[in-house]
Amino acid sequence: MPIDLLVHSARQVLTLAGGPQRGSSLGRLGIIEDGAVAIDAGKIVAVGDSSDVRGRFQARDELDATDRVVTPGWVDPHTHLVWAGDRAEEFEQRQAGVSYMDILAAGGGILSTVRRTRAASPEDLAAQTTRRITRMLTYGTTTAEAKTGYGLAWEPELKTLEVILNLDEKGPIELVPTFLAAHALPPEFEGRPNDYVDEVIGQMLPALLSWWRQQVPQRPRPFVDVFCEEGAFDLAQSRRLLEGARALGFPLKIHADEFAGLGGAGLAAELGAVSADHLVHTPARDIQALGASGTVAVALPCTPFGLSEPDYTPARALLESDALLALATDLNPGTAWCESMPFAMALACRKMGLTPAQAIAAATINAAAAIGRQDQIGSLEPDKQADLLILDVPDYRHLGYRFGANLVAEVVKRGQIVVARGAPIFELDNHSL
Amino acid sequence: MPIDLLVHSARQVLTLAGGPQRGSSLGRLGIIEDGAVAIDAGKIVAVGDSSDVRGRFQARDELDATDRVVTPGWVDPHTHLVWAGDRAEEFEQRQAGVSYMDILAAGGGILSTVRRTRAASPEDLAAQTTRRITRMLTYGTTTAEAKTGYGLAWEPELKTLEVILNLDEKGPIELVPTFLAAHALPPEFEGRPNDYVDEVIGQMLPALLSWWRQQVPQRPRPFVDVFCEEGAFDLAQSRRLLEGARALGFPLKIHADEFAGLGGAGLAAELGAVSADHLVHTPARDIQALGASGTVAVALPCTPFGLSEPDYTPARALLESDALLALATDLNPGTAWCESMPFAMALACRKMGLTPAQAIAAATINAAAAIGRQDQIGSLEPDKQADLLILDVPDYRHLGYRFGANLVAEVVKRGQIVVARGAPIFELDNHSL
Repeated sequence: MPIDLLVHSARQVLTLAGGPQRGSSLGRLGIIEDGAVAIDAGKIVAVGDSSDVRGRFQARDELDATDRVVTPGWVDPHTHLVWAGDRAEEFEQRQAGVSYMDILAAGGGILSTVRRTRAASPEDLAAQTTRRITRMLTYGTTTAEAKTGYGLAWEPELKTLEVILNLDEKGPIELVPTFLAAHALPPEFEGRPNDYVDEVIGQMLPALLSWWRQQVPQRPRPFVDVFCEEGAFDLAQSRRLLEGARALGFPLKIHADEFAGLGGAGLAAELGAVSADHLVHTPARDIQALGASGTVAVALPCTPFGLSEPDYTPARALLESDALLALATDLNPGTAWCESMPFAMALACRKMGLTPAQAIAAATINAAAAIGRQDQIGSLEPDKQADLLILDVPDYRHLGYRFGANLVAEVVKRGQIVVARGAPIFELDNHSL
Repeated sequence: MPIDLLVHSARQVLTLAGGPQRGSSLGRLGIIEDGAVAIDAGKIVAVGDSSDVRGRFQARDELDATDRVVTPGWVDPHTHLVWAGDRAEEFEQRQAGVSYMDILAAGGGILSTVRRTRAASPEDLAAQTTRRITRMLTYGTTTAEAKTGYGLAWEPELKTLEVILNLDEKGPIELVPTFLAAHALPPEFEGRPNDYVDEVIGQMLPALLSWWRQQVPQRPRPFVDVFCEEGAFDLAQSRRLLEGARALGFPLKIHADEFAGLGGAGLAAELGAVSADHLVHTPARDIQALGASGTVAVALPCTPFGLSEPDYTPARALLESDALLALATDLNPGTAWCESMPFAMALACRKMGLTPAQAIAAATINAAAAIGRQDQIGSLEPDKQADLLILDVPDYRHLGYRFGANLVAEVVKRGQIVVARGAPIFELDNHSL
């Protein structure tokens, strides 16, 4: 019986086989030259030499990857995907020399996004988000983590979560939800951060658990995340929040050390968080703690780029400590409106000293591990989901080397071709981009 | 009688009317809200309020720009567009710590591109270049300067020039040629730079003039350019070369101060060059000289980004000196394989301190001035070429603010729609990207 799809004759198939890549092992691409991938019922059934695979399978549909490179779909393990409005004026003001504190005082900054997100209908929020999803897919992201965090109260946080789950069901992108009510202090709790942490632990997380059990019991539980940072939540508050979430059985994530090294990365390692993210100003002892832990270190190079900050995640130190390193975009309206994982990879090469091969592994199998999905996605191996890209390049090293323009020609999600010749071929709304 | 095309209902039409923008006047966008552009026979016939323009013209075709922004097509005034092969392996080696000198000694660097470009047939060279042109158009570049300079001898330089002229005739992109035989010292002249300069002045430039008069007498003469830099051509050699070119009636350009401030920018101002490009390490007196001259200062921010160099063109000092500032990509296989002008603009905001409005003016009307075409392109005014973009954004400030993904939905070149819904709709070769 014929299978659904055969991708063949690729100059290079990068399998990324063998699981997440720790420390100095980062960058094992598992290259098959003149490679093929056989796909049926949304899953990979074989990966190997083109003539061998073509001899074993008849397919209803074929994609010829001659002179091109096949990779797993990118996994973007840290995004703030769902918001309303934009902060374009604020960007212009900052460029013209207005300070962030003055912008905040005038009602700008994250709380302006909170106001607009709270006010938006679920339909409007989904429509605005869909345009970003279309761009993400066009640049090769087939699975993304998506955080709440512009609601900062139960109702708008739940509204955001429902938008994420609905968009995931609609597809073709796969979304993995994270509950980030502790993204910032809501205006209603000004000056009372501990009261808000109490509210999240005592009210929201139990409500979330109950809602989850009733509405989507079949789904893995969402991550719970906290922004551990000066001006957001301190280490003690972050610990209290994550311990509360863990007691209820939620898997954990943390925003740590973006601007100041408060100890959030060490806390993540201690508590067995699935990932610790940002890690720009992480103290040496916390880098060692990450290296000795199962917590994935997620670097977000688009954020210092977006802010014109000089410092990036110290990737080489993390790799020397034997950490698991992943890459994400941090897509958000304040510091990094960037849907492109290849751009995060180009930055990681230039600003964090990765090779193209290391950046690719950090954007695939290790990024899958950062959202606990390394058994389903992130590599091209039999029985995994058939999420793959055909890049219009003759060698994987063009990733990183080239920047600014899209190199993704075809995107396959769960065996379906969703981007062809660089253009989306699914209908999400009235906008192609 | 109906006109060809009416673009209407744009949230903002940025006209950039009024000519090149010097010094502190940079950033005058000439915004028309609810704007329209009427186009006939490849030219703009009216720009104004939508209801007014729609009342005056019937059109055979319409583009609805509701909730979106219309700008002039980007002009990319500095590219090394035509080459064969790539240097992806070299990028990986540099990331892994191999020095550029070791790469050069192993046959890498610019001379490896020279070898491959010399060896390529004109057809192959055109096909490889066409894939880059398709990307440039998709990101909104409707006119680009294109340099020779990977031939470094008369025959391959002429071959490259003919590829440029043929691709320009084929369209839809418009290419403005520059003769850059003095891009590097060819291996045949190792240790004898003055002999090579003599060869260019005494043999190549007269041959070029004669060829031009016979083959394309109707076209404006190409620019003559020189790489004035340590390791390339010194100031005296550059002066000799540019004076020789000027004596034959060629308009001038110069690569100046990319790594060392040799005085090339002052030379450009003195000789009345149309542009001086790079300008990262330009001495203060040469910044003043540019400000007092008609020479356009062309910043190439993708190049320090590509090389991970910390220093960018000092845009604020150039503007304070009253200079004409333009932006370009420097698209080339060694330091900046980047087809995207919007990415150059996003960098210019973050690394050179421009506002989005300033970056837009530097990429349109001032970029047109950098190739001597400010009377034909670079703004939306009656009688100018109908080269325009519809951006899928509600406000021009999204340029610069957002990065990594393409915001261009529609591209119109000489009145023809060549990109629609983000995808090219002309057939250049077998690849969409």
